[in-house]
Amino acid sequence: MDTPPTADHRICFFGDSMTQGTADPQCRGWVGRVCEAARVRGIDVTCFNLGVRGDTSRDVRQRWEAECAVRFTVPCATHVLFSFGANDMTLQDGALRVGYDESVANLQAMVVAARQRHAVLVVGPSPVNEPEQDERIVALCRRYEASAQQLQLPYLPIVRTLMSNQRWRGDVAASDGCHPGALGYELMASLVQRWPAWWFADNAA
Amino acid sequence: MDTPPTADHRICFFGDSMTQGTADPQCRGWVGRVCEAARVRGIDVTCFNLGVRGDTSRDVRQRWEAECAVRFTVPCATHVLFSFGANDMTLQDGALRVGYDESVANLQAMVVAARQRHAVLVVGPSPVNEPEQDERIVALCRRYEASAQQLQLPYLPIVRTLMSNQRWRGDVAASDGCHPGALGYELMASLVQRWPAWWFADNAA
Repeated sequence: MDTPPTADHRICFFGDSMTQGTADPQCRGWVGRVCEAARVRGIDVTCFNLGVRGDTSRDVRQRWEAECAVRFTVPCATHVLFSFGANDMTLQDGALRVGYDESVANLQAMVVAARQRHAVLVVGPSPVNEPEQDERIVALCRRYEASAQQLQLPYLPIVRTLMSNQRWRGDVAASDGCHPGALGYELMASLVQRWPAWWFADNAA
Repeated sequence: MDTPPTADHRICFFGDSMTQGTADPQCRGWVGRVCEAARVRGIDVTCFNLGVRGDTSRDVRQRWEAECAVRFTVPCATHVLFSFGANDMTLQDGALRVGYDESVANLQAMVVAARQRHAVLVVGPSPVNEPEQDERIVALCRRYEASAQQLQLPYLPIVRTLMSNQRWRGDVAASDGCHPGALGYELMASLVQRWPAWWFADNAA
């Protein structure tokens, strides 16, 4: 969707604890950092961080429309960024909280509905520092990526990049064991900012 | 309500643009600052900033319960802070967006419902740098304060303190004319942190 001709950019970020910024000593996560960077570049950004700890794709699907609707009530350039999936891959009583097929269907349903009215981006799920779950998250990320390609939707996979990054792993280990601290969230923010599809990318006009 | 015996503190902050942190170059407002300060003191705080630009007490009343419910899904110490009222006092077609009586009734209804299950605090409305509206906000703040006293609820009035503060006024003038920048949000954060009722006050145990 084309961005409306307004300088008033408002973004709803939907996701899980990694979007919320859990365990960040600065309480802002990568979301706060990329929005601050946009403001430093002179862009008028309003950041609604709607990450919720523990949320699966199913949880986000149930709430995103209502939470968007009350935040986008005046004419402005509306943006929605989704980032979830890690909690879908948690085992609960021996089964995935949300299976692969439903997870992909949730992503598709949200994206298709959201981009009728808003600019939409998807950042792939993050690792959780649990080897077997992380492998499932990598597999889900591939499914998300294929789905996004089909929908011609910009998609940023981050799980393998983070898993193989020693600074990331060290920061998670030094934090609560599954979320990073300030350094890890800075790293995530830099991945988003260097992504050409990011609305306010470092290399954008 | 007594705080449950857990170290996992989660707070939903409901309010308007001043709660959201609009125009803050750091995109975190006073809410992000007080939560960061709590983390610095070693308290495990999860911050859900649910401020929405333009919201009146009526708007918050319509959404707070649903937005709380999806964020407080696991056993944890749940906290709700309300801060609104300035937009109620905006004139629209010659009438207040929300009149005094309804505004007070909205506050009461939310507080009474919220404190059945959560720790609850109220921070009074902020000034908007428009002399006549600011006078109405001062009057509303007095009504809120009387209501809070009746309910034996901790209430922090800030409107007159901010209106009479030259650093605040200068910061708002240097920002967008009705919201402060980093300095003003720091000032608001310091008012909250020095408030003995604040859950993680500087002078708390």
